[in-house]
Amino acid sequence: MKRIALIGTGRIGTHHARTLAREVAGIELAVLADPASPTLERLAADLAVPAATRDPLSVAADDSIDAVVIASPTATHVELIEAFAAAGKDIFTEKPIALTVADAKRAIAATDAAGVVLQVGFNRRFAESWTRAEQLVAEGAVGRVQRLHSITRDPGPYGADPARVPAGTIFTETLIHDFDILNWFNAGSEPVDVYAVADALVRPDAKDTGFQDSAVVVIRYANGALATAEASFSAMYGYDLRGEVFGSAGMVQMGQLAATAARLYDAAGGHTGTAGTDTSRFHEAYRTEFQTFADVLHGADTDYPEGTDGLRAQLVATAAIRSAAEGRPVRIAEVDQ
Amino acid sequence: MKRIALIGTGRIGTHHARTLAREVAGIELAVLADPASPTLERLAADLAVPAATRDPLSVAADDSIDAVVIASPTATHVELIEAFAAAGKDIFTEKPIALTVADAKRAIAATDAAGVVLQVGFNRRFAESWTRAEQLVAEGAVGRVQRLHSITRDPGPYGADPARVPAGTIFTETLIHDFDILNWFNAGSEPVDVYAVADALVRPDAKDTGFQDSAVVVIRYANGALATAEASFSAMYGYDLRGEVFGSAGMVQMGQLAATAARLYDAAGGHTGTAGTDTSRFHEAYRTEFQTFADVLHGADTDYPEGTDGLRAQLVATAAIRSAAEGRPVRIAEVDQ
Amino acid sequence: MKRIALIGTGRIGTHHARTLAREVAGIELAVLADPASPTLERLAADLAVPAATRDPLSVAADDSIDAVVIASPTATHVELIEAFAAAGKDIFTEKPIALTVADAKRAIAATDAAGVVLQVGFNRRFAESWTRAEQLVAEGAVGRVQRLHSITRDPGPYGADPARVPAGTIFTETLIHDFDILNWFNAGSEPVDVYAVADALVRPDAKDTGFQDSAVVVIRYANGALATAEASFSAMYGYDLRGEVFGSAGMVQMGQLAATAARLYDAAGGHTGTAGTDTSRFHEAYRTEFQTFADVLHGADTDYPEGTDGLRAQLVATAAIRSAAEGRPVRIAEVDQ
Amino acid sequence: MKRIALIGTGRIGTHHARTLAREVAGIELAVLADPASPTLERLAADLAVPAATRDPLSVAADDSIDAVVIASPTATHVELIEAFAAAGKDIFTEKPIALTVADAKRAIAATDAAGVVLQVGFNRRFAESWTRAEQLVAEGAVGRVQRLHSITRDPGPYGADPARVPAGTIFTETLIHDFDILNWFNAGSEPVDVYAVADALVRPDAKDTGFQDSAVVVIRYANGALATAEASFSAMYGYDLRGEVFGSAGMVQMGQLAATAARLYDAAGGHTGTAGTDTSRFHEAYRTEFQTFADVLHGADTDYPEGTDGLRAQLVATAAIRSAAEGRPVRIAEVDQ
Repeated sequence: MKRIALIGTGRIGTHHARTLAREVAGIELAVLADPASPTLERLAADLAVPAATRDPLSVAADDSIDAVVIASPTATHVELIEAFAAAGKDIFTEKPIALTVADAKRAIAATDAAGVVLQVGFNRRFAESWTRAEQLVAEGAVGRVQRLHSITRDPGPYGADPARVPAGTIFTETLIHDFDILNWFNAGSEPVDVYAVADALVRPDAKDTGFQDSAVVVIRYANGALATAEASFSAMYGYDLRGEVFGSAGMVQMGQLAATAARLYDAAGGHTGTAGTDTSRFHEAYRTEFQTFADVLHGADTDYPEGTDGLRAQLVATAAIRSAAEGRPVRIAEVDQ
Repeated sequence: MKRIALIGTGRIGTHHARTLAREVAGIELAVLADPASPTLERLAADLAVPAATRDPLSVAADDSIDAVVIASPTATHVELIEAFAAAGKDIFTEKPIALTVADAKRAIAATDAAGVVLQVGFNRRFAESWTRAEQLVAEGAVGRVQRLHSITRDPGPYGADPARVPAGTIFTETLIHDFDILNWFNAGSEPVDVYAVADALVRPDAKDTGFQDSAVVVIRYANGALATAEASFSAMYGYDLRGEVFGSAGMVQMGQLAATAARLYDAAGGHTGTAGTDTSRFHEAYRTEFQTFADVLHGADTDYPEGTDGLRAQLVATAAIRSAAEGRPVRIAEVDQ
Repeated sequence: MKRIALIGTGRIGTHHARTLAREVAGIELAVLADPASPTLERLAADLAVPAATRDPLSVAADDSIDAVVIASPTATHVELIEAFAAAGKDIFTEKPIALTVADAKRAIAATDAAGVVLQVGFNRRFAESWTRAEQLVAEGAVGRVQRLHSITRDPGPYGADPARVPAGTIFTETLIHDFDILNWFNAGSEPVDVYAVADALVRPDAKDTGFQDSAVVVIRYANGALATAEASFSAMYGYDLRGEVFGSAGMVQMGQLAATAARLYDAAGGHTGTAGTDTSRFHEAYRTEFQTFADVLHGADTDYPEGTDGLRAQLVATAAIRSAAEGRPVRIAEVDQ
Repeated sequence: MKRIALIGTGRIGTHHARTLAREVAGIELAVLADPASPTLERLAADLAVPAATRDPLSVAADDSIDAVVIASPTATHVELIEAFAAAGKDIFTEKPIALTVADAKRAIAATDAAGVVLQVGFNRRFAESWTRAEQLVAEGAVGRVQRLHSITRDPGPYGADPARVPAGTIFTETLIHDFDILNWFNAGSEPVDVYAVADALVRPDAKDTGFQDSAVVVIRYANGALATAEASFSAMYGYDLRGEVFGSAGMVQMGQLAATAARLYDAAGGHTGTAGTDTSRFHEAYRTEFQTFADVLHGADTDYPEGTDGLRAQLVATAAIRSAAEGRPVRIAEVDQ
């Protein structure tokens, strides 16, 4: 049994706490750490987690802790990763690894130096239709990969205040999933250049501030494959996550737009329900990514998204931000320094 | 070029006239015959059909005519078939062949004696997903056939006057298609017994008159296969024709519930259009069945629904009517006399 | 926190043990009871269940236990239910309640007399597309219910020894789910008569022994609705559970045939994976039915399949067995004594 | 009855000849013109077309001809259109209107000056799921349009000789359909700039010659909408034509990947057939576009793709070619001269 500390108990951190406490074999959620949550102790009690602390870094000094799960704000990641790596803790971090390419490299260097695990929270790799599709691509079912597409549309209506959304968010927090998926499916080839367009189409009133809620990205890979990614902050029909990989022998598609298989047919036609608007839709993928982390802690020889995968996706995001700003394709080499 | 006479220009006869006049290669629609239609001459003119007559039997005496298509009321079929067969005309007749098993046998005997073609209007055999499914079953894709199901639901709202619908109509005019499809898919085995239930569920107010708008039928075949057929006169979402064949190696399904592939997703979920409410949906199947008739007239060695197929379906319909009336399974042998 | 004892740790009992131990809030799995399992203690240790016993009835005398989950063979149910009811334990029992209608009535009478819960393990009611469909039907989305259909095909190849499968199994263990679903969807109306055909189509070599692996059932309800249910022990494409409810305003369908949304398109066409062959496919439904049981123990006013629902399904199964044996429709009243 | 001349009897011209001769009401196919076809007279005889000529321009002088359908090579279009317009003939031309933007403008100016119809052969506008989707978008079902996508993948294996495929073909002959569809769906807004990448991924051996068989295009519109189009010359699963329009209220999708609704389920999973590899798949769309042309000739007030639509798509194609060559986004204004 590995003892785990969870750092950060915001919305996604709380979801992770429940999953780690109840549904992952081989681990014990031993500490919750959050410097600011007013409900930290209540959450610990509800989940029978024996300890709670306001000082995340104190976990580094706790020899009884084997590994940490970092779900705190991105700005805190690099400092935490360096401290936990130095203390020999294995690390799971939410995406992105850090705010900048340079910081992501620092974090990776720290974990490499310490010889600890650094798993990045690309949960879509663990969603069942993506897992199955990747297996098909890896087996050669589509032949040589020529074309890839990945979509993330968050459920609407979009309710956040644009003024409180940092610049680049659509690339660093949303499309980073798509960039990782594209890199994963086109395994063995590196992104070469990136062209991105982004706009405030959901909230055109916020366009003047530089707010971006809609984006399209084109990525060219070294093997010639042409990839596209797209995102919107407001799909009124619920979560819309899809992917497609096309090659010399065929195509795989993944993702679906209805939460259940119930279909209604009436005088207005055929109807399915929406894909839903909460993260419970991805619960099984979250559970599987943490079970994988637990298995890795116990020595399993299993693939998982590593620090280098996080960096690769971050390079694409960084190039996309620059491309959207400058209106030209940007080479990965320009941002990889 | 074979010269064809069309007998009967009611609703379906008019549809057939247009198809025969314009879309079937190798034939010429030379005569329209209808004893009662006030618009017969207008239809002939519109379609450039050179002749029209009020006397269907006059076609038998016309040596320039090679074949006839019979789309007149069922009660007229047997007399027409006997006359045309005696005159050496090849014959396509709408289903059912006749009102009774005995009359159907007379009609078949007449065409056999004359050595002319008798094709029965089971157009569903020519609908593309049924054609493809039958090919799969014949190739062994589902293994030994164990279970079959066929559905016909006509589009609602049902508007006919129950008092003017003859008893047994749901079996002889609607489910006869399903009985033929089941026999066709379970080729090589004969129906043994039939259990049917029927009711006035669409028009419960007409139940007292014996009107039936909803029915379910169970058929056991000599090879053990268990088949079901069902029908309703009022599907509010449009035409619903489907089929399923299950066997030792797998299953095929056919039919679909949307007229087009356009899909809308909005805050209420996913939506497709209805399957439609007019026979244009089956136009391609009608066209193909007549092209097959034309090809057969020109000597093609092609499968088509023959008189014996029409009889086999009629035996099931007759047994079903008796079963529904008597509340017990009825053996085909009881009605085959 | 309610303390639960699980009776029976066979295949499905072991699955339930894991679910109850880890994934249901508000309960504690406190005892495992099985008179014969050689691995009982190991299972208890793995799941951190504090007690294990070879004597299921000893649970009745344990005042610390609030409720029991019965997953032992059907033949043991009635005695256990009577004992646990007398001891004031709330009861969840796997389906069917008992081997006979009379025993099912005894069990229900015992729980009624004791005022304890009797929830029956009709897990399909908790599968998400069935739940959603039932909600639509209850809201009137299909209008007056006229036609219902329910399918259960277990995954093949069928590997059990026909000689060890009790007569009637396809009705009492498999189709009982479908009978309950049909009753549930046609809520407020009672089944009136039943016609069933069954055969050994998967294992025709075992037909002489009376073995039945394939069945079709027609049920007429008091409100006129015509229902059908069907089952096979061997669907080579994996689990096939589907349902359909048709009414005066439309139709709902439920169930799906692919385990994931991944689709492959290649030179041979489009391909999805199978629906799978293990009960993990229904894990979420099992989890939800037990969470419902737990919620009911805590006083929630929630619908669940009760003893009377179990009896109603058993009456249909009993009538179906007789109908298949005697080749005639059987009224429910004939078997309800 | 309008008398029509067809110019060009190559592969698509022959298909059009059959459609025009047999399936379009209100017209008579009176002349076939082709300077080079060795089978011109045979085709005319087969279709009962009364006249055939080696001199397409002779049609301009034939006062009995009301309108022409141009299906000859693109290089010939502008001269033919100018001649036929000058002679007062209404014109249907295959896409693209001409080889260059300047020539397309000349052709449009000629038809404008003569006051004759110029319909462009964007048949996808007449394919039923596109027609239905456009209706939904026009009715506001997706709200404000924010994102559009259009796919054309021709069936593989690709068999043409790359050396005989002119530069830019993927943009001018294939993606021109997608550009028109995107413009049509985003009606009322003009394309502003275009970014395109293209490569020889199907035939990498031909890359050195500048051959392009795979392309992705990003188009920004004046209303902010972000559109993408993509094409491949070799989809091994058959024709793949799809579209998607996303907006503030929802999304519509169109196109499908199976030719029929027959589905097979076996031990390997679920299977549909391919989408097919011949133009018969689009026959109904071709028939409808010509029926529309015929209706317009008879004065119908019906929308159809006009010369300005052809020009708009050609401007996008021209910008895309330049963008792919220069590796930068290209403004429409740069190529509109």
